[in-house]
Amino acid sequence: MSIFGEIPGYPEGSEFANRKAVREAGLHRHNIKGISGTATDGVDAIVLSGGYTDDIDDGNVVIYTGEGGRDINTTRQIRDQEIAGGNAGLVESCLKGYPVRVIRGSQLRNAFAPTQGYRYCGLYTVQSYWLEEGIDGFRIIRFRLEKIHASPEPALLTTPLPTGSQQPPQQRYSITRVVRDTRVTRTIKEIYDYQCQVCGERLETSQGPYAEAAHIRPLGRPHNGPDTIENVLCLCPNHHVLFDRGAFTIDDTLVVRSIDSTVSPSSLIVRPTHPISLEMLAYHRDHFDFTAPA
Amino acid sequence: MSIFGEIPGYPEGSEFANRKAVREAGLHRHNIKGISGTATDGVDAIVLSGGYTDDIDDGNVVIYTGEGGRDINTTRQIRDQEIAGGNAGLVESCLKGYPVRVIRGSQLRNAFAPTQGYRYCGLYTVQSYWLEEGIDGFRIIRFRLEKIHASPEPALLTTPLPTGSQQPPQQRYSITRVVRDTRVTRTIKEIYDYQCQVCGERLETSQGPYAEAAHIRPLGRPHNGPDTIENVLCLCPNHHVLFDRGAFTIDDTLVVRSIDSTVSPSSLIVRPTHPISLEMLAYHRDHFDFTAPA
Repeated sequence: MSIFGEIPGYPEGSEFANRKAVREAGLHRHNIKGISGTATDGVDAIVLSGGYTDDIDDGNVVIYTGEGGRDINTTRQIRDQEIAGGNAGLVESCLKGYPVRVIRGSQLRNAFAPTQGYRYCGLYTVQSYWLEEGIDGFRIIRFRLEKIHASPEPALLTTPLPTGSQQPPQQRYSITRVVRDTRVTRTIKEIYDYQCQVCGERLETSQGPYAEAAHIRPLGRPHNGPDTIENVLCLCPNHHVLFDRGAFTIDDTLVVRSIDSTVSPSSLIVRPTHPISLEMLAYHRDHFDFTAPA
Repeated sequence: MSIFGEIPGYPEGSEFANRKAVREAGLHRHNIKGISGTATDGVDAIVLSGGYTDDIDDGNVVIYTGEGGRDINTTRQIRDQEIAGGNAGLVESCLKGYPVRVIRGSQLRNAFAPTQGYRYCGLYTVQSYWLEEGIDGFRIIRFRLEKIHASPEPALLTTPLPTGSQQPPQQRYSITRVVRDTRVTRTIKEIYDYQCQVCGERLETSQGPYAEAAHIRPLGRPHNGPDTIENVLCLCPNHHVLFDRGAFTIDDTLVVRSIDSTVSPSSLIVRPTHPISLEMLAYHRDHFDFTAPA
């Protein structure tokens, strides 16, 4: 049974002498493993303790490497990682928007870690995940976690909700999805007059048409995609979600290929004033096609 | 020409003796009007100074009443407000995700206002807008603004972006869309097996199907809708956006009525285990059908 969110009596900043103390407080279920959770329930906590050289810790943003595929003695990658076990749990937590307790160990030796023992550093959400070739040449799965900021409405939570509540705020939490509108993203919508480049749909509201600008290679660390017209597509929300989840990719001939075998390949709608970067499309395929053989 | 975001030299907390000083600093373009902006460009700033009795100021969340329809002498509503002028500008800012500078005047007499003059209180985004019957019995338009929290990536910005940038972070901003997953919202997706109740679509990804739970009467202040199964629908992202924007409503016989006259009415898909509150559907029609006669 997973308990998501804050554990009563252990606010952010609580410190612990060792992993056993973290476990006994109910913050994490294991003594050694980094990921606490299952594929079915999602992940309720992770420990950052410097074990993975690919990890990045910026405090409010953590790039966390999935588990598995390492040699138990050398700790080097010797096999590809799979979306299974704790990794599948982190995917589940991303899809469901569950909060994840982040615990840092002194072994991290960075500005956010305690000088000794372990510290509970608050709640994060899993914002995205993708595939990458790790330092040792094998496929790893990486997860971007972002800290949940204090919110004007009660943002923290205890156990999952009962079946319904007339007064949800005390037990509700919210996560966020980043949406941007810059001159680039506005331009792409104007080029396509708010028509989705995959299905041709244009959502109509009384306040005007609606479309989303989807970055092919995502902005921000660690993807660092450029905010240029060559790196964006004009999509309806459905195809934006599907593209970000790797449910379809776009090949070098601009054919849309779905991982759902019932959907036939189709040509991407492209206007002459919209140059599309083949390099960015390759980046998307390399990092978000979760069905590709490693 | 609208300048969105922070004005160099005037960080959050900057104080001004009067509206003229606010205007001369470039924070707001008017001396008296509350809303600085146009229907086409969006709104770059608003002043909160206690003029509208319907306003709510919780610091990080502001419920702001639109402009117009008031008697110039008594300041009471004497006509319905319309989505035009500054109100249309705030709608535009919501749809585009533009940041709005919020300036508070001492007349507010609350914990977030200065004791004298005016204070620049940071950047907010317009999260939503809806129709309501105001205290004086006429239709008003209300806007929910939420403060943009400090972000690990540079969240603030100067003027709108140039056509493209290989190094976007310095001039990028992000806004957020709230997504939730509670036991209630998980249950609704399971009842419909991730099928949209409007179009019947089920989005497939290699990590599982995807659907969104849409609250009919929104959660949180000021709508305070309940987080119960009677108040949620299982929708695809496209129909979630369209529902939240009032592009369709659902009548008491559970027929989906689009404001787009090219779309025929259709029956909502409903499973026997999903009781739907007619009261919540009426709330949605009353507050989000922007085409309804007042």
